[in-house]
Amino acid sequence: MSLLIVGSIGIDDVKTPLESHKDLLGGSASYAAVAASFFTPVRLVGVVGEDFPQAYHQLFARCGIDVKGLQIEKGKTFRWSGEYLWDLNQRKTLLTALGVFEHFKPSLPAPYPDTPFALLGNIAPALQAHVLSQMEKPRFVMADTMDLWIQIAKPELLDLLRKVDAICMNDSEARELTGKTSLIKAGHALLSYGPKYVIIKKGEHGCLLFGEGRFFTAPAYPLEDIHDPTGAGDTFAGSLMGYLAKANDVNFDILRKAVVYGSVMASYNVEAFSLGRLQTLKPSEIEDRYNAFKIISHFDDIDF
Amino acid sequence: MSLLIVGSIGIDDVKTPLESHKDLLGGSASYAAVAASFFTPVRLVGVVGEDFPQAYHQLFARCGIDVKGLQIEKGKTFRWSGEYLWDLNQRKTLLTALGVFEHFKPSLPAPYPDTPFALLGNIAPALQAHVLSQMEKPRFVMADTMDLWIQIAKPELLDLLRKVDAICMNDSEARELTGKTSLIKAGHALLSYGPKYVIIKKGEHGCLLFGEGRFFTAPAYPLEDIHDPTGAGDTFAGSLMGYLAKANDVNFDILRKAVVYGSVMASYNVEAFSLGRLQTLKPSEIEDRYNAFKIISHFDDIDF
Repeated sequence: MSLLIVGSIGIDDVKTPLESHKDLLGGSASYAAVAASFFTPVRLVGVVGEDFPQAYHQLFARCGIDVKGLQIEKGKTFRWSGEYLWDLNQRKTLLTALGVFEHFKPSLPAPYPDTPFALLGNIAPALQAHVLSQMEKPRFVMADTMDLWIQIAKPELLDLLRKVDAICMNDSEARELTGKTSLIKAGHALLSYGPKYVIIKKGEHGCLLFGEGRFFTAPAYPLEDIHDPTGAGDTFAGSLMGYLAKANDVNFDILRKAVVYGSVMASYNVEAFSLGRLQTLKPSEIEDRYNAFKIISHFDDIDF
Repeated sequence: MSLLIVGSIGIDDVKTPLESHKDLLGGSASYAAVAASFFTPVRLVGVVGEDFPQAYHQLFARCGIDVKGLQIEKGKTFRWSGEYLWDLNQRKTLLTALGVFEHFKPSLPAPYPDTPFALLGNIAPALQAHVLSQMEKPRFVMADTMDLWIQIAKPELLDLLRKVDAICMNDSEARELTGKTSLIKAGHALLSYGPKYVIIKKGEHGCLLFGEGRFFTAPAYPLEDIHDPTGAGDTFAGSLMGYLAKANDVNFDILRKAVVYGSVMASYNVEAFSLGRLQTLKPSEIEDRYNAFKIISHFDDIDF
């Protein structure tokens, strides 16, 4: 089934202690859409300026992404520039220039309102709600978010949580929003805010899934070297939703596998800058690493 | 098969934000021995003073622990007092009084040198090596350690690592000893120091197992409330080694299960102060939680 993805689309400059790259494709919707396209047809909702490189338009086309919902406006594409500190666990934002993103208020073109699955990627909660309000009884909607919205738009975020089926956020964000130090308590608190499922991303420690009175934990893939952590969370969310849309069903057991596929795709994504690794990724590699996740986390009734 | 356990045996005063208890049974060998006794016969090597409460001698007896290696010396038993901060992730030591532990230099009584499995619990590396030197070709030896020894006895610790089959330490200790931020790199570095297997404990994030060119990750049990984290690592190590001694064989697949049993026992141990929970624990509860670990971490070919 189709998956609608809304979020930011931008051009990034990214610096790590070892490398520095300019004019990269970035933004939450770019990562999520390209990752999800490995699993299911994607309908993209976003905005870029006239300066958006043709090569990036072509990348979306090669992935078979439906871009009827991608507005091209006069002006500059959203730009972000960031630098990672030596252990790649912390980053500082050097520049944010909204450009055409400043006045982004998408209207869903036909047949987008009918899309059964939707990922409200990381943008302002009011904008996520605006997109959701145009949808006609979607089957399953997940929202992603970030610390900025907890700090400057908490009421809108809490309002959104009452309307979505699932929420996905980082461990530090879950602690900040709920005021709970224990991630187990934070997960349960987030469920009490409305969504049926909660996913807490823990970076190198994997992720936690709560819902239906059940619990699941997925590890992170044991990578020795990470080249660029940018977009890992968006890749995770896009792949997770792509898998659900492909399965065309949602329950806890399907969600377990979806979060593992999300983890698989995120682990590939950080192996190169921007979307470089996803562009060379083969479906067989996805299955190989999915099986590797089984090998590193199953411990009983196994036959390796 | 029998398991030899050496380590500290003490009397603890423990304070958490909610509770405070005095004169508790403590020490790395106490936790490890009682936990291991659920799996296999245990031979305890340690020292206490004449003030060591009769109730704690009886506790060891009830667990069927062989105490021929437990010296009772004139003087005071080792005492430790600590306070946990509000989130229980950090603690400060308020008092350490070595007492009879200061001149502890154990001689293994017959038939201890023949014991096939040994856990060198957290004490000074030189003391661990002293015990190991008295053993006759043990089949499998694991050492535990702590940050203090990395700081004040690093050469002795590195020397010990060349002589043991496995090492077990916390994530922060693994980073400190190896100088690697990535726990994956730290695990591989520790393997290069000598042991065939490395286990890195990550508290609320579970643990990692390295060896035989393979990797395994176990989650932590999703507890909402932890009453007393004291001894969780010792309980983990004791149970892990107890399971191996019971299996009477060691390979990567057996070790996966051993670290899960270690995690099961540690998760129970933190539910009450000191060894309170282990004293009421039933074998069926161990199996119940082992199955719960399967349910929270397996994701494929499952039938729940």
